[in-house]
Amino acid sequence: MMLKATIDADILKESIDAISALVTECRLHTDETGMSTRAVDTANVAMISLSLKKEAFESFESTKNELGMDIAKMKNIFGMMGKDDLIILELPDDGHKLKVSFEGYRYSITLLDPNTIRKDPNPPNIDLPGKVVLSGSELNNAIKAASVVSDKIALGIDPASSLFYMSAEGDTDHIRREFGKNEVNYINSSEARSLFSLDYLKDMGKVMNKAEEVEVSLGIDHPAKFSFYIAGGNGHVEYLLAPRIEAD
Amino acid sequence: MMLKATIDADILKESIDAISALVTECRLHTDETGMSTRAVDTANVAMISLSLKKEAFESFESTKNELGMDIAKMKNIFGMMGKDDLIILELPDDGHKLKVSFEGYRYSITLLDPNTIRKDPNPPNIDLPGKVVLSGSELNNAIKAASVVSDKIALGIDPASSLFYMSAEGDTDHIRREFGKNEVNYINSSEARSLFSLDYLKDMGKVMNKAEEVEVSLGIDHPAKFSFYIAGGNGHVEYLLAPRIEAD
Amino acid sequence: MMLKATIDADILKESIDAISALVTECRLHTDETGMSTRAVDTANVAMISLSLKKEAFESFESTKNELGMDIAKMKNIFGMMGKDDLIILELPDDGHKLKVSFEGYRYSITLLDPNTIRKDPNPPNIDLPGKVVLSGSELNNAIKAASVVSDKIALGIDPASSLFYMSAEGDTDHIRREFGKNEVNYINSSEARSLFSLDYLKDMGKVMNKAEEVEVSLGIDHPAKFSFYIAGGNGHVEYLLAPRIEAD
Repeated sequence: MMLKATIDADILKESIDAISALVTECRLHTDETGMSTRAVDTANVAMISLSLKKEAFESFESTKNELGMDIAKMKNIFGMMGKDDLIILELPDDGHKLKVSFEGYRYSITLLDPNTIRKDPNPPNIDLPGKVVLSGSELNNAIKAASVVSDKIALGIDPASSLFYMSAEGDTDHIRREFGKNEVNYINSSEARSLFSLDYLKDMGKVMNKAEEVEVSLGIDHPAKFSFYIAGGNGHVEYLLAPRIEAD
Repeated sequence: MMLKATIDADILKESIDAISALVTECRLHTDETGMSTRAVDTANVAMISLSLKKEAFESFESTKNELGMDIAKMKNIFGMMGKDDLIILELPDDGHKLKVSFEGYRYSITLLDPNTIRKDPNPPNIDLPGKVVLSGSELNNAIKAASVVSDKIALGIDPASSLFYMSAEGDTDHIRREFGKNEVNYINSSEARSLFSLDYLKDMGKVMNKAEEVEVSLGIDHPAKFSFYIAGGNGHVEYLLAPRIEAD
Repeated sequence: MMLKATIDADILKESIDAISALVTECRLHTDETGMSTRAVDTANVAMISLSLKKEAFESFESTKNELGMDIAKMKNIFGMMGKDDLIILELPDDGHKLKVSFEGYRYSITLLDPNTIRKDPNPPNIDLPGKVVLSGSELNNAIKAASVVSDKIALGIDPASSLFYMSAEGDTDHIRREFGKNEVNYINSSEARSLFSLDYLKDMGKVMNKAEEVEVSLGIDHPAKFSFYIAGGNGHVEYLLAPRIEAD
């Protein structure tokens, strides 16, 4: 086992934040081309797939490894770092501890045994024909607004008027956010509508808020997929969120 | 019933904040000249009268309506809005729901039945001869300083020296803030002194903090009245606060 | 008894913050040359010695007094003050109340009876040969980083490589911060290493964070001494912290 990489603190934090929106631990795979992880939350409602190409790093060298990461702990430790720090990650031969160093600091972090962490889920094979691409902060704002009146939200595409809509129905109040053609970067004309838990979307929304563009893929009573780039285009995140049953 | 109005998010928030300092719901009256409300807190200690002239709106059209407003809910919903958003308020014919829209968002907010809300109080007919006009932030600062040592504060005018004073007596400590003639915009020479609960004043103080000028009217062991303009002069707030009995 | 002094709010707050990191009350001594206090925390683990020369004040006049200060209360009261306020402190003849005034505010604060406060500790006579001088914010950053993985930290000097190090061992993780010769303002070559509680260091660290230079004095399993100037060089603080026993 070998890993030696140097990375901007910003990119490392962005990646950890994206993962920690869903899970507290994960299996991190590294090989000569970069890093990746795929994990499902404990309730089996949401999945994250994250990859960082070796180009996302200042320098990167790795054999094929599987590391057990305590994401919650990483978040605490890397929260201390300044935004312009360069971080060196190193996995010694025995592979039980990750060495992290920057600016005179040297951490030794015990890794988890990957076998104690849930196996990587298989990416489900689903067809989500509805597509809309819009700014992550617009998406996040609508999620926040909806969560004031309800705990679930419908996302849909109205093909007749080429509208993407987010709609939340509370006990007494209702909120609807429509995005016309001129407010999104792309929209197709495939009808779509599914209901989702705002609990999950709020955490994902905070991460997507920083993305210039998020591609949302939708079906009818189907999961939603949110895809966006991180690390200046050298990393990619995909959230998959199962729908809730719409009560009549 | 009909209402259709457009207003700056800022002005709407300022008005809701002023009301929510005292009550969680109120009867809002609208007619062709604007909006107004008058409400008393549950303990009958403080009253707010608020009015917004139609000039406070970008556009305003209304028949004579009485709307039951859940102020606490409004505060949550409008807390989401950006400060430069233009908000459209609309009351459809049936009058049970208020439609609010801005920037692609459309809310439908169920109104309360006005008959379930306390009747508007009559404005009491009291003579408060002492008058001082000063900056709202100075007033708020003195309220905050007093609340460190006590839970009540005396407000008074010393006619001999033309001083407005705020004085709080704690168990062991004492604080007094005097405003000389040169620190206030106006003061008359009518002796006044009454004791008030800081609980109420702290909430009012946060609202008054933004007012360039607050007119304070005082008597001897009488209520205090705090009057100030909002909405760039096109709105007005009056707080009336009952005195506490001064223990010897 | 007499005391009449004028001081910048900033300097007063800085001094109160330094004391309140360790104790909630203290005996404050004043005489014609300035003010000073020395106090030990309730667990007898840490001591503070603080002095303010009369040059730290805009004006200063005092007889020899001993004042019983409720530091926690002072912190609340002076937290209200703006950073450029000039504060007048005055002790009337009877000496039971301290009068504090600034910008139209007049406080009267009841002092504690000095006899109810622990006697001033004697400064212990200990030899701490290891010395390093570095920026207070670097010191504080290392303390904060260590507290993520552990509740204790070792401070030491490695004479062979002229390194000052801070090292914390958690249950599973380890962090080490080394300061080379070029990162400190001064270091001598006296071997030193002792273990300290991060509980205390975190509170001290927040105060030291503002100091341009902190002189750290160390021994082997001995207390640590942290000395730094406040009030633009006209005040001085010394923290003394007892070591913890290093478990094997």
